[in-house]
Amino acid sequence: MNKYSVAVLGATGYTGLELVRILRDHPGLVMRFATSEAEAGQPVRGTSLRYVKAADVPLAEVDIVFACLPHGESGAYSTAAHEAGVKVVDLSSDLRAGQAGAEYGIPELWRECVRGKTLVANPGCYPTGILLGLAPLIRAGLVAGGKPVMIDAASGVTGAGRTAKREYLFGEIAEDYRAYAAGNAHRHVPEIGAGLGRIAGGEAPEFVFTPHLLPVRRGILETMYVPLVAGASVGAAVEATRSMYTGEPYIEVMGETLPSLRDVVNTNRVAIGHAPVAGVKDPLLLCVVALDNLVKGAAGQAVQNANLMLGFEETAGIGR
Amino acid sequence: MNKYSVAVLGATGYTGLELVRILRDHPGLVMRFATSEAEAGQPVRGTSLRYVKAADVPLAEVDIVFACLPHGESGAYSTAAHEAGVKVVDLSSDLRAGQAGAEYGIPELWRECVRGKTLVANPGCYPTGILLGLAPLIRAGLVAGGKPVMIDAASGVTGAGRTAKREYLFGEIAEDYRAYAAGNAHRHVPEIGAGLGRIAGGEAPEFVFTPHLLPVRRGILETMYVPLVAGASVGAAVEATRSMYTGEPYIEVMGETLPSLRDVVNTNRVAIGHAPVAGVKDPLLLCVVALDNLVKGAAGQAVQNANLMLGFEETAGIGR
Amino acid sequence: MNKYSVAVLGATGYTGLELVRILRDHPGLVMRFATSEAEAGQPVRGTSLRYVKAADVPLAEVDIVFACLPHGESGAYSTAAHEAGVKVVDLSSDLRAGQAGAEYGIPELWRECVRGKTLVANPGCYPTGILLGLAPLIRAGLVAGGKPVMIDAASGVTGAGRTAKREYLFGEIAEDYRAYAAGNAHRHVPEIGAGLGRIAGGEAPEFVFTPHLLPVRRGILETMYVPLVAGASVGAAVEATRSMYTGEPYIEVMGETLPSLRDVVNTNRVAIGHAPVAGVKDPLLLCVVALDNLVKGAAGQAVQNANLMLGFEETAGIGR
Amino acid sequence: MNKYSVAVLGATGYTGLELVRILRDHPGLVMRFATSEAEAGQPVRGTSLRYVKAADVPLAEVDIVFACLPHGESGAYSTAAHEAGVKVVDLSSDLRAGQAGAEYGIPELWRECVRGKTLVANPGCYPTGILLGLAPLIRAGLVAGGKPVMIDAASGVTGAGRTAKREYLFGEIAEDYRAYAAGNAHRHVPEIGAGLGRIAGGEAPEFVFTPHLLPVRRGILETMYVPLVAGASVGAAVEATRSMYTGEPYIEVMGETLPSLRDVVNTNRVAIGHAPVAGVKDPLLLCVVALDNLVKGAAGQAVQNANLMLGFEETAGIGR
Repeated sequence: MNKYSVAVLGATGYTGLELVRILRDHPGLVMRFATSEAEAGQPVRGTSLRYVKAADVPLAEVDIVFACLPHGESGAYSTAAHEAGVKVVDLSSDLRAGQAGAEYGIPELWRECVRGKTLVANPGCYPTGILLGLAPLIRAGLVAGGKPVMIDAASGVTGAGRTAKREYLFGEIAEDYRAYAAGNAHRHVPEIGAGLGRIAGGEAPEFVFTPHLLPVRRGILETMYVPLVAGASVGAAVEATRSMYTGEPYIEVMGETLPSLRDVVNTNRVAIGHAPVAGVKDPLLLCVVALDNLVKGAAGQAVQNANLMLGFEETAGIGR
Repeated sequence: MNKYSVAVLGATGYTGLELVRILRDHPGLVMRFATSEAEAGQPVRGTSLRYVKAADVPLAEVDIVFACLPHGESGAYSTAAHEAGVKVVDLSSDLRAGQAGAEYGIPELWRECVRGKTLVANPGCYPTGILLGLAPLIRAGLVAGGKPVMIDAASGVTGAGRTAKREYLFGEIAEDYRAYAAGNAHRHVPEIGAGLGRIAGGEAPEFVFTPHLLPVRRGILETMYVPLVAGASVGAAVEATRSMYTGEPYIEVMGETLPSLRDVVNTNRVAIGHAPVAGVKDPLLLCVVALDNLVKGAAGQAVQNANLMLGFEETAGIGR
Repeated sequence: MNKYSVAVLGATGYTGLELVRILRDHPGLVMRFATSEAEAGQPVRGTSLRYVKAADVPLAEVDIVFACLPHGESGAYSTAAHEAGVKVVDLSSDLRAGQAGAEYGIPELWRECVRGKTLVANPGCYPTGILLGLAPLIRAGLVAGGKPVMIDAASGVTGAGRTAKREYLFGEIAEDYRAYAAGNAHRHVPEIGAGLGRIAGGEAPEFVFTPHLLPVRRGILETMYVPLVAGASVGAAVEATRSMYTGEPYIEVMGETLPSLRDVVNTNRVAIGHAPVAGVKDPLLLCVVALDNLVKGAAGQAVQNANLMLGFEETAGIGR
Repeated sequence: MNKYSVAVLGATGYTGLELVRILRDHPGLVMRFATSEAEAGQPVRGTSLRYVKAADVPLAEVDIVFACLPHGESGAYSTAAHEAGVKVVDLSSDLRAGQAGAEYGIPELWRECVRGKTLVANPGCYPTGILLGLAPLIRAGLVAGGKPVMIDAASGVTGAGRTAKREYLFGEIAEDYRAYAAGNAHRHVPEIGAGLGRIAGGEAPEFVFTPHLLPVRRGILETMYVPLVAGASVGAAVEATRSMYTGEPYIEVMGETLPSLRDVVNTNRVAIGHAPVAGVKDPLLLCVVALDNLVKGAAGQAVQNANLMLGFEETAGIGR
């Protein structure tokens, strides 16, 4: 098997740490460089490498870069590296609107667009779950127009990054729970809208996105209230979802059982469940999606994309 | 001040423990009996009492009973005690539909109905927050008809009681999060509907209620998506809420700041915040409510009701 | 009752927040100033005050200062305020060795030394539990010389303060547990040694102190392995402890039941339990102590000291 | 590679679940039966099997049994299965004193005794860490006689099993911490003593074992206070440990850095660190050990033992 040299940019954040962990078991990707501005010179746990500064990575010795730098910096680095002939998966939000020709990489939705590409924007954690949950329903024509989909989401704290901020101290988060960036103010809202529009092949359904901060380390649960067209049922929703994801290694369609974080944490899986809603005049469906924000919501999906870019088996190094 | 003799029925559950704690500091209520079937004969921590079995409470020596027995048993006990001439606050769901003439006790909504009554059904924890959050909006005519209010709620684990069940073990709950009884299947749904109807003075608005289980000990957060009538605004919602709750000791109207569990845990307060929603055609409001399920959602409100029943100052023993 | 004007210096740290909460219910202390360098101008939750900078507190209008500034700054401020004629409780470690004539304030051990004083150094959280647990055993002559007392302690994360540091993020602390400053390297070690020496009336017993960081918000548990003199027993230890603390409102002697954090969190109590040790040649005793690091370990004890300084009832404002 | 048929007895407990997870990736062990008395007939998540009752496992079709039944039942089943010609790893405490000829299996200490055996008693979680931490020190003659080693241990809640008990509910454990079975009363004490004696080749050093219950799901940390012989140093302890475990895949000798749960959770590793102790007359060493109670403390070590029994590479299926 071909071996490719990898650089992980921003390797001491939660996403970077997860990438380092996944790459240790990858049969064809060899981590050669891991960067950290603050810990340059320190050893990289579980490897024989030492962190270097991002500017000190010799791109000529690198085949593919995973860029997990802060939003704002990451896209600039990725674009430059790509222009220098290196393949890039950018995990920030900088290139997700297609900047610099980047392909938006959710394999289960747009696999053939990713295959063989050289610059891929890895999706946000919240959008990954929303788009994978709603795509089968939209494509099957089950979602009623003119009414918003309500998306009530909750994420573990690692989603906020590993930078020291008072609001994410253990003493602030434990035994607490709160909404934030409510009312479509979250920076993932345009990404969600663009993704839904692409799935719909035109105008996206309206939606309202409300993230909450959970006192857990990792995991996202998204409870979506989906208005259905007349005559649609929860059975049709389950069937459309099952049918679309047959054979997908990382999608678990649970039928009328609802997923919990425990079903997906530490894996690259997205679990999807549906429930009917009683007592309302217009038909409504609950669609609940769970994923690990650091794996399928970041590092795992990034490796899945890299596998498609380089011609590896899509699950290489990721496990089940 | 008059002193009344109190019996707490079911004193070793989470609600019962909280009642025992509150009653310790009450100027006019003296706990004389605390019951536990399993721990009868054992000392009641922080008091000089010992637990007795429920059947062994001499009702002739009791002025007021707080009944926290399991749903099903509690109402029967309460009805019998009431017929024997004892005042009763029943904390189960058994009498909340008005059985045996019980008054439904949310002081901030129906204070004068509770005052001087002898049998009060203490509301459920989820309904307390929902009704207090939506009442000002409904009364002010801000809620649009014909569309459901989506109520996405999350509760700490003590809401599930203190009976040993595998699903509530620490090993199952920590680092997990999930929906349950989704799609209007929760047993609080009829109580919510009845309460909303009473507030509306007729037909209740449609609603969808989805509770989730949080890995915290106590606290409820309810994120409500409220369809507004044309021309209504978040400002009007804040104003209606502030106006209705002026002078209420236990309602904190936070304006366009959203509450978190931390704001209310270990207190009898309900905190209410509002947020506008961008990017949707029909006007929509977020109304987020937080309360402690064991205090304002159970034991604290029960003492508030008892104070109204007996003529004490409404805040006696409860603190702020 | 006399009313005294209070300034809380460093009111947005965990200790400061706890002081603000306690002072709200104090019958004779009125918080007039609360300082925060970062939040100056912002409202102080639950009051009508706004934070001011420490340098802007008009000491002439203040009767007593609670100084919770960072170690290093706090002592200098306290000394200057005291010289300006203001009474001071300093909660940092700066004055605990008696600097500037400060009295070391553990009321249950040295009550009469604190009464009426004008400058008191509030003890550290770890030493408070250790000294209160070991004092009865040392005074009763039960502790064997020549062998160290092993003190294995664990503290909730608020003990590390509210400054943003990566190592105290929720993502780092949840599901983790570790020792730190092991082998008598913790900055409380000299304070513990001095306190034990004062109790012993001469040379302190040797000890080894190993703190650990618990994934809880608050609470300290200290498991102490105490070598006993020949003929001593766990019964004698319980008896000595019970005898010394008879009538103390904040000491709970549990006998041969061992305390847990749950017994003391959110209260000013110290709970002390003892257990015999089987299978060892030389007699050994386990002495386990629990307290809330923010209450009896900081803010609660500070108010207890202030009450003694000002002539209030010792429990005023603190509750049980 | 040879393929062996496996039965997991008691597959819905925490240890059983972990075994099922590990076996999924094992190249030579194929899980054919998984038992559960309560869930017989239900599907085994992530497999195509259904749970059967223990009595319904056809032993003639099984090559090796992992018995995770409750203490008391497990040994009887294992002995009978072994007599029927099946290889057995028993994970209960029933056979750890050598009953029925069972070999006590800690590969890093007694690898050659396990290789090729047909009946192995898998060690307890606490003893595994203690014996692996102390063995190098005892063998190198560094531990002083006549004084007890103090072992202060803390374990995550899964160590208490998955049976529904009130004391292990989330509402009881979260934000709590306590000692239990203190003073050498824990049922692992004889196993620890026997293991230390075997290491010492005669009389074991005295020890005092105090377990505590941590509010985490998994992981054990053991802080050991080790009296040293005159002239011994922390450097000698590190050196002895490093030397003994050179080349061991699952032992991480950290030198004078102390391990935390985070270093080992979800792995089969034991991490060992040492620290000097200042301020005491007689030389003393801190030895801190961390491991995952469900992996190296149970299921992972069981597969390690099975690999030795069957002639597989010792790390097969376990990962790093």
